[in-house]
Amino acid sequence: MAIKQVIVVRKDIRMGIGKSCAQVAHASLAAAEIAMENYRSDYLEWKQTGEKKIVVAGENQEQLGRLFEDARTLNLPCYLVRDAGLTQLKPGTITTLAIGPAPEEKIDKITSHLKLL
Amino acid sequence: MAIKQVIVVRKDIRMGIGKSCAQVAHASLAAAEIAMENYRSDYLEWKQTGEKKIVVAGENQEQLGRLFEDARTLNLPCYLVRDAGLTQLKPGTITTLAIGPAPEEKIDKITSHLKLL
Repeated sequence: MAIKQVIVVRKDIRMGIGKSCAQVAHASLAAAEIAMENYRSDYLEWKQTGEKKIVVAGENQEQLGRLFEDARTLNLPCYLVRDAGLTQLKPGTITTLAIGPAPEEKIDKITSHLKLL
Repeated sequence: MAIKQVIVVRKDIRMGIGKSCAQVAHASLAAAEIAMENYRSDYLEWKQTGEKKIVVAGENQEQLGRLFEDARTLNLPCYLVRDAGLTQLKPGTITTLAIGPAPEEKIDKITSHLKLL
């Protein structure tokens, strides 16, 4: 069973490419650390198989919030990034959500309808 | 002394936003793990102070290679991403370089001339 991580980026807010990349990295790292501590065998398999990461587009803050709750319900490692608001956004703005590393089939249950960014 | 991570992305190759974000996340995570294992106090300070990440533009493969050597010479945690080439790029293409988490002054010695992506 392949292990992957999906990162959802809001497309309804204006962020430069560098800003988007930094937010995705922040989400990815935080969810990976949760997996490293709590889902160790999935985490290790992910590391050993190239750390598959898929970046997809999310509609808005509400959708990311719902996906986060869905991921928690499925007991998947996940992390929601709220921007500190020092540069381009208002403080506390939700920008990205990382789900996994976790088995592909489990993540697909809640993210398979999302399009690649 | 503030701790940050700088991620350099090649701007001379065509990558979609999602692809760029995934490559940056890959570089960021790998360099963070090197720091976690080998530069623990810098890593912990970075975690506790919001994990500052700066994404900048690199000219080409040669420049990223030189920056990587410079970072190693300065004994900074760093990681060069070579793409597996499954989607948009040729296998082995260098796409991104992460330097740090490490003290800002040390990283700035080699990256301060680079512009934000």
